[in-house]
Amino acid sequence: THRATKKKKAGRGLEHPVFPSCNGCDIFLCLVGQSSFSLRSHTCGELCSSHVDEEVTLCGWIQYLRQDLFVILRDFSGLVQILIPQDEVANAFLGLTVESVIMVKGRVRCRPEGQENKKMSTGEIEVCAESMEVLNTCRKLPFEIKEFVKKSEALRMQYRYLDLRSPRMQYNLRLRSQMVMKMREYLCNLHRFVDVETPTLFKRTPGGAKEFVVPSGDPGKFYSLPQSPQQFKQLLMVAGIDRYFQLARCYRDEGSKPDRQPEFTQVDIEISFVDQAGVMSLIEGLVHYSWPEDKGQINVPFPSMTYEEAIRDYGVDKPDTRFGMKLVDVTTAFQESQIEFIKDALLKPSGCIQAICVPEGTVRTESGDSHSYVPTPQLNLQRSQCSLISKQINLFKQLFLMAQANRPLLGKLRLQCVELLESYGVPVRDPSVFHFLWVVDFPLFLPKEDNPEMLEAAHHPFTAPVPEDAHLLYTQPRKVRGQHYDLVLNGCEVGGGSIRIHNASQQLYVLDTILKEDPSLLSHLLEALDSGAPPHGGIALGLDRLVSIIVGAPSIRDIIAFPKSFRGHDLMSRAPDFVSEEDLKPYHISVVWPSADIEGQQDNSV
Amino acid sequence: THRATKKKKAGRGLEHPVFPSCNGCDIFLCLVGQSSFSLRSHTCGELCSSHVDEEVTLCGWIQYLRQDLFVILRDFSGLVQILIPQDEVANAFLGLTVESVIMVKGRVRCRPEGQENKKMSTGEIEVCAESMEVLNTCRKLPFEIKEFVKKSEALRMQYRYLDLRSPRMQYNLRLRSQMVMKMREYLCNLHRFVDVETPTLFKRTPGGAKEFVVPSGDPGKFYSLPQSPQQFKQLLMVAGIDRYFQLARCYRDEGSKPDRQPEFTQVDIEISFVDQAGVMSLIEGLVHYSWPEDKGQINVPFPSMTYEEAIRDYGVDKPDTRFGMKLVDVTTAFQESQIEFIKDALLKPSGCIQAICVPEGTVRTESGDSHSYVPTPQLNLQRSQCSLISKQINLFKQLFLMAQANRPLLGKLRLQCVELLESYGVPVRDPSVFHFLWVVDFPLFLPKEDNPEMLEAAHHPFTAPVPEDAHLLYTQPRKVRGQHYDLVLNGCEVGGGSIRIHNASQQLYVLDTILKEDPSLLSHLLEALDSGAPPHGGIALGLDRLVSIIVGAPSIRDIIAFPKSFRGHDLMSRAPDFVSEEDLKPYHISVVWPSADIEGQQDNSV
Repeated sequence: THRATKKKKAGRGLEHPVFPSCNGCDIFLCLVGQSSFSLRSHTCGELCSSHVDEEVTLCGWIQYLRQDLFVILRDFSGLVQILIPQDEVANAFLGLTVESVIMVKGRVRCRPEGQENKKMSTGEIEVCAESMEVLNTCRKLPFEIKEFVKKSEALRMQYRYLDLRSPRMQYNLRLRSQMVMKMREYLCNLHRFVDVETPTLFKRTPGGAKEFVVPSGDPGKFYSLPQSPQQFKQLLMVAGIDRYFQLARCYRDEGSKPDRQPEFTQVDIEISFVDQAGVMSLIEGLVHYSWPEDKGQINVPFPSMTYEEAIRDYGVDKPDTRFGMKLVDVTTAFQESQIEFIKDALLKPSGCIQAICVPEGTVRTESGDSHSYVPTPQLNLQRSQCSLISKQINLFKQLFLMAQANRPLLGKLRLQCVELLESYGVPVRDPSVFHFLWVVDFPLFLPKEDNPEMLEAAHHPFTAPVPEDAHLLYTQPRKVRGQHYDLVLNGCEVGGGSIRIHNASQQLYVLDTILKEDPSLLSHLLEALDSGAPPHGGIALGLDRLVSIIVGAPSIRDIIAFPKSFRGHDLMSRAPDFVSEEDLKPYHISVVWPSADIEGQQDNSV
Repeated sequence: THRATKKKKAGRGLEHPVFPSCNGCDIFLCLVGQSSFSLRSHTCGELCSSHVDEEVTLCGWIQYLRQDLFVILRDFSGLVQILIPQDEVANAFLGLTVESVIMVKGRVRCRPEGQENKKMSTGEIEVCAESMEVLNTCRKLPFEIKEFVKKSEALRMQYRYLDLRSPRMQYNLRLRSQMVMKMREYLCNLHRFVDVETPTLFKRTPGGAKEFVVPSGDPGKFYSLPQSPQQFKQLLMVAGIDRYFQLARCYRDEGSKPDRQPEFTQVDIEISFVDQAGVMSLIEGLVHYSWPEDKGQINVPFPSMTYEEAIRDYGVDKPDTRFGMKLVDVTTAFQESQIEFIKDALLKPSGCIQAICVPEGTVRTESGDSHSYVPTPQLNLQRSQCSLISKQINLFKQLFLMAQANRPLLGKLRLQCVELLESYGVPVRDPSVFHFLWVVDFPLFLPKEDNPEMLEAAHHPFTAPVPEDAHLLYTQPRKVRGQHYDLVLNGCEVGGGSIRIHNASQQLYVLDTILKEDPSLLSHLLEALDSGAPPHGGIALGLDRLVSIIVGAPSIRDIIAFPKSFRGHDLMSRAPDFVSEEDLKPYHISVVWPSADIEGQQDNSV
């Protein structure tokens, strides 16, 4: 066999098998850490003055080289300077290309006085090469690694394996991995949750228009890639698993919505014998425990706001509370107004006038009395005009008025104003600040957009009503609040969950009588609820979104190793791709080619 | 908001936010452990004599009840006896059904002397109920939980949420979760591996007949659900991730092969700057670290055997080394034989006679000299006849002879003999013993079954040759051994990996010249190898198989929460299912219905 033991530095003690070296001398394997089981003895970035005089073996990429003098060697941990001795070793370095992979053995020494590089974490030392081996030559490089960030998204995606070499992407992926590990420790080790994998080849949800289908070998029958393990997590509670979690891969076919991915990951959690306060505390602990050290402290418990308050004060159910500019009720000030559209608005049932006050910016504002009210007709505030108006903020420093029905529009305008202010250099939101917020007391049902006489579930049909509203289910379902809670971070929804209905007849009533859905499609769940289902609830955190906000990435693509483009394409491997008729036969499907003019629309744009 | 703090026992100290109770008294949340954030104060199974006189709140299922006297309450942790007081509390218990869910408050007390139950872990105590609330009534139960194990597989699958309540399934899923957590600690915390998620919507592999296809919104284009993240893990090494791992969901459409699942999980690992010995040591450490305490010690390093030795001694590349009965070369004994089929065999190039010796069983054998040789013609040993012959083991005790070409058949016969012996009550393999074994030095290429002139990759086309054989690639590729290693446990392959080719021109030569595959389909990988790919290698462990062997489960379905049936069906939700033509339209596919006679074959059997 090809088993051989290599020279390694002495390892730290650990609860772990010791692998003695075969030659029995004082050389040991590096038992733990970032260089265990490796050809290298150290990483480039860990070297410092305490390693001086040590013999080290380094493996890495050539970041920069001056053929006759030195090489800057890079691995994931950082950079180190390799001094090329002026003897036959120097020949090995001749003709080396940037990004080639080499192994260097040498001795660490202090840099000569005055030659230290304070900007480099290893800037006090250098490694004097004693031998060097070229492990692989870089023959092709579309762009220098350090320039990659500046290149087009499409190019970065096509050469993703080069893009990932950048310190930023290395940081993002490693931080994600560490956060996930901490989450698992918290859930599994501290709170005894059970990590259970649930299937991704599942049955199509009725009306699940966003679910990918997977043809099976049974003619006409398809699996579906689920949008979440919702049914399974509830069934696991019925199964007595008691506390479940999973980093669950979920799927949603949303075409080319901006910054969505066809597959994404959620931290999926469900717990039995719990109430809303319990789940919220659990999640606060989870976020606190897994929070990256270099991102400052966060305080728990998180503040909490009702859905009604959020809509009233921010015009949105996921308010960004890092700044004020709340929606203000100015109805009384306009009670006597003769302006036509304001009179109209106030005549409507529960008509009122809402406003936001946009300060010109604390830096430039010297007097505190700059509240001047500029009414703007509701009807003019169409989407396109909103931005037009907000561009004039610095001209008429302001206020926008709207009739009540348009609170969401005012909420959007509030965000646009801030972006505009910040683009003018007025700091409004501190990028190092993280505002978590719970939004609670959502309505359980909402009128359907296309048919307001009908109701649909605001969250999903398994959410339990708030206990004191439960009796209204049977009389005034529109007034029922759900035991639903959303976790909001800096104005983005990063999680949502609920206490679930555990009573079969209540669940049947909601599905059948209120939502008019065919309950037979969920007969297995209804049966399960009737066979001893414990009270239970849970939550799902959007991991991609959460991590992207924490690292300050502009897109979730920056915290996913191999993301798809806007159009759902993998630009590196060119997936999806054509499949032969022959290969489709076992699945009893064939392609329905659209007519030529539609086909013409296809392209390979990002 | 519905935030409320409930009575909880004092928590242990921890690095974790403290959630003070809102009423400021001496009551705290149970901060960590299996009852944190819960309505209960304790689990049923944890109570013992040290809890006597404590006030506890328990939540669980009614395992057994005698209406007027006591209830046996169950949760995941075990059983406890609840004493029903003879006052108005007793009324609440009237009419309760088995498997209903209740919450009991009461005080722990010692059972009266003589009434202890030694068989029950909580048998020294009982809880005297002070109040009881029915959380949910069980109205429907196809079978008693404790009887479930005895029921048909199909019924267990249909009511999987009940089947999972059994102690055995609870144990299996929890052990799996704990092992996975330990693996993550070892890889991520001890050895600084990075947990990276890779896409499951990928491009179809050329000739990937076992890959599920997923239609996309682009007409005629499909994603594919990959059989493993092989390409991604290698690209991550090129990307400088250095040490990658993932519990990766993999997909394989194998129809109804026994004990396979269309989706399964592998512990996927890749590391840069490593050699074969390094990967093997890493995995030994991983298995050792994550090994369940209650399964005894395992020793590392694991023994290692070449492919050639395995085939020679066991007739198979994954030998079960828990027992002997090795294949023995008895050619010399038959050199002069006049028996026709033996003469024929020996006349063939490198013809020889192999045998296994089947002892009647150590228990019943008193003399050590029971080697009697019964020759059996090679030609008779067709598959069906093998078992026929092996059923007669106890009649003529024994030896089977075969020509060399049939070593695999003799290897199978060896296993059949053992099963037969064990079915007769002769212990051969100790069920509590775990024999790990590395098999190494596999041939890199094998002749194609349907065209022996052509070669195919024995493992996959990315496996690097053994260094000293590398020059043979260009002259005698059939003689090249690969740097491939399989991990075998008790005769099952539980893992396989290799050092990969990191040189683009060598990879191109293997794909193009040796394997005659179209290299343009892997152009992204070839390009990546040319842009500074480090030497790297890795492994994938079959988690489902590994855990099922450890817990002694007869099928991998016993360690998967919601497995599919043999035919790939989810018998609970009835997936896969029909999808309307309308729902298929966005994917530009339609169903090709087979002719009526083929359709007739369909059924819903397991």
